Amino acid sequence: MQARDMVEEFPVTSLDADALEAAKVMAAERLPGLVVVDARGRPHSILGASQVVRFLVPRYVQDDPSLAGVVGESLADQVADKLSGVSVRRLLPEEPQELAVVHADDTVLELAAVMARLRSPLVAVVEDDQVVGVVTASRLLQLVTPQ
Amino acid sequence: MQARDMVEEFPVTSLDADALEAAKVMAAERLPGLVVVDARGRPHSILGASQVVRFLVPRYVQDDPSLAGVVGESLADQVADKLSGVSVRRLLPEEPQELAVVHADDTVLELAAVMARLRSPLVAVVEDDQVVGVVTASRLLQLVTPQ
Repeated sequence: MQARDMVEEFPVTSLDADALEAAKVMAAERLPGLVVVDARGRPHSILGASQVVRFLVPRYVQDDPSLAGVVGESLADQVADKLSGVSVRRLLPEEPQELAVVHADDTVLELAAVMARLRSPLVAVVEDDQVVGVVTASRLLQLVTPQ
Repeated sequence: MQARDMVEEFPVTSLDADALEAAKVMAAERLPGLVVVDARGRPHSILGASQVVRFLVPRYVQDDPSLAGVVGESLADQVADKLSGVSVRRLLPEEPQELAVVHADDTVLELAAVMARLRSPLVAVVEDDQVVGVVTASRLLQLVTPQ
């Protein structure tokens, strides 16, 4: 079996996409993250759902969650305020999470090795520099674990 | 809204549970991880699916994935060999991933603050020292994002 035979559908966003739209996709499909590609469709990084949450919560509340009570605005209101007109690029940390990548013709064990080395919950599969899908750790376990 | 109103069902395993059973649950339900509790049901850590993959792949292949071809045994065979008779405790890294925890009566923003500060994709919700469920980052986004 090769990586191309293992891939799952996984929504992809781009660095210049609308942050609110990306958040809505993660929310609607209950995804832990999105693969972010650059303007040429090449894999760039992962945008984790917790990264979006991080962008929404004021820094002083992150430092001391007991201060949450003094914030007048609800988190739902902050979503509109903070994400409107913002690009996905802005949500990424200064050092974006490295994206684990394998080629479509790599084997199961090569894919597992890359996932293990980078401690990554998912690996992007590329062919001709384009992302053709991802393989999550639980998908890999599904393929190799007796049911 | 309080944390108890947000929780999702999320399978829990324990430090002394069977590692192969834990892997099967993640595989069958396509979960990115399990909450690990101690013998008294108190939250201990997260066991990520990628941690199980890490346990299966020989160290020299992790260091150099191009060596995957020299491994005679398939990953599926390694699952049985390596996980049989092993406890979940053995799969955890030496410094287990800290589990983000909130109390059942904490607010949405307090939960978001803890998630943001620890960059955690999920938060365990406890009441009387017992895990009553978890809230994932995508669940939180679902609750605060306009659909």
